[in-house]
Amino acid sequence: MDLLKRFEAGDIRALSRLISRVENASEGYRDLLGQLYPQTGRSLRIGITGPPGAGKSTLVNCLAHEFLGREQRVGIIAVDPSSPFTGGALLGDRVRMNEFPLDGSVYFRSMASRGASGGLSTATNNVALVLDAFGFDVTLIETVGVGQIELDIIDACDVVVVAVVPESGDAVQTLKAGLMEIAHIMVVNKADRPGSESVVTELRQTFRLKKKDPEQWSIPVLATEALNNKGIDKLVAKIDSFLEHQRETGELDRQRRCRLRAMILNILTNRFRQDFLDKLANRPDLDEAVDAIYEGRANPYQISRELYKRFASE
Amino acid sequence: MDLLKRFEAGDIRALSRLISRVENASEGYRDLLGQLYPQTGRSLRIGITGPPGAGKSTLVNCLAHEFLGREQRVGIIAVDPSSPFTGGALLGDRVRMNEFPLDGSVYFRSMASRGASGGLSTATNNVALVLDAFGFDVTLIETVGVGQIELDIIDACDVVVVAVVPESGDAVQTLKAGLMEIAHIMVVNKADRPGSESVVTELRQTFRLKKKDPEQWSIPVLATEALNNKGIDKLVAKIDSFLEHQRETGELDRQRRCRLRAMILNILTNRFRQDFLDKLANRPDLDEAVDAIYEGRANPYQISRELYKRFASE
Repeated sequence: MDLLKRFEAGDIRALSRLISRVENASEGYRDLLGQLYPQTGRSLRIGITGPPGAGKSTLVNCLAHEFLGREQRVGIIAVDPSSPFTGGALLGDRVRMNEFPLDGSVYFRSMASRGASGGLSTATNNVALVLDAFGFDVTLIETVGVGQIELDIIDACDVVVVAVVPESGDAVQTLKAGLMEIAHIMVVNKADRPGSESVVTELRQTFRLKKKDPEQWSIPVLATEALNNKGIDKLVAKIDSFLEHQRETGELDRQRRCRLRAMILNILTNRFRQDFLDKLANRPDLDEAVDAIYEGRANPYQISRELYKRFASE
Repeated sequence: MDLLKRFEAGDIRALSRLISRVENASEGYRDLLGQLYPQTGRSLRIGITGPPGAGKSTLVNCLAHEFLGREQRVGIIAVDPSSPFTGGALLGDRVRMNEFPLDGSVYFRSMASRGASGGLSTATNNVALVLDAFGFDVTLIETVGVGQIELDIIDACDVVVVAVVPESGDAVQTLKAGLMEIAHIMVVNKADRPGSESVVTELRQTFRLKKKDPEQWSIPVLATEALNNKGIDKLVAKIDSFLEHQRETGELDRQRRCRLRAMILNILTNRFRQDFLDKLANRPDLDEAVDAIYEGRANPYQISRELYKRFASE
């Protein structure tokens, strides 16, 4: 296959085309991923999440520069399930790429729910695999908020950085919302703004109190000013030591196994669902059921139970 | 059943308990919904969506007061899939309810993804059915953004109001994002801010240009100041005339049938999926597959295909 050859030779346009195929779940994309799979497993996956306005894009770009400085190639995926409003995917990949060299050492891709058939988190995971296979040493995945979709995406990362800003009680809300369970490193960005020191102190105390097992990773709270590139070196150092901790404790392996398991389960249930829908599409049962309910002869729960029995016994 | 009797007698606490059962998909909730179903179908479902900061909550509260003034009872569901950050569900139902009478004529419920097992949009739809059965004449459903979850929720509404603010290019982005397809009525809220008139004009022109079929509903663009209760009467009037249009053209019926169909499909696929997962959970195949992939003996796509064949033939 020509496209795959060009991909393997490092052709960026071939990369973009493969990503589009995978993102749109085009015919044969699973076989494609199967062929790429042996080349994956080397890229470090870093998730960056936080509320709108926390400066995640700037943080991500700063991190990309740091890794570039280490001669590492960086793939960036910006996921924005509500992009029509926030402008995430609309803002466009080109604007974000302006500050990077054009030699293929940084690749940027934004994803919105509209483009992703079969689930945004699955699509994101698949795109990350393609970047991994292409040879990017680091994949930065940026998400807004912590809805279920974002949590699924973040779950598939080796390291999770949660960014907040000093104002607006974000920090406390973030904790209350149980984000503790997903954050490995906490960042108070825009730390030049008033109140940042007390937010950092408050977060540190809370994390200290919540830590029960001394063997457990201590979630660090860092102050950064991404716009001025301040504190980014410390953030990268913390990412390094977290990964070291994960490797030593065997957590990295365990997590990647969990991820594989979830991936297989996901492929299987999606396929199962599609088969089921195909089966349904060719039958009049569903329309008859709608008529029956609409005319008051049945209710949706009762009729679903009957339909289910009928389908399951076939 | 005692709880159901109290619900039918109009007991608000029984309503809250039933909603919690349905929201959490507690044992037997489908039978419960089946019992309530014959009492549903009378409530008008209005969806209000838009970017964060568009003043949706205030708009919704204003609308609630308008309907109250018509002696109609109003149920409100605020859906916030990313609530941990925005504070939607955390802010609490009580604060929002402060300005309403305590006689049960207005009921407020916020929903976040954490509380909703089995899908936030399904849960929202089910809660709306409970409110419908309880006797609320109008159900206002408020969502942030337009991710897939929000679109699913909005799809299940009779009328969809999209709110934007004059600044930030929201209006244009909203159009670009294809929101035209979901908006029945467009609102430029906070219209006392500079630039609102030109945004309204611009939106009106765009909607006029895009309209192809003269029979089609003309999407009105209204200027409101929800905080000062300005323009709300016109909004309600437009909602009325849209519904009249929908009734006359048969669209209301057609939409409600579509909704029913989607609902049955949803119940069926969820049940099938759960059955499938239960089947998988009791078998060693999955762990063996993870081992094989981890040790480089297989790739997830190939092994999923094999597993699928094995399961499907059983």
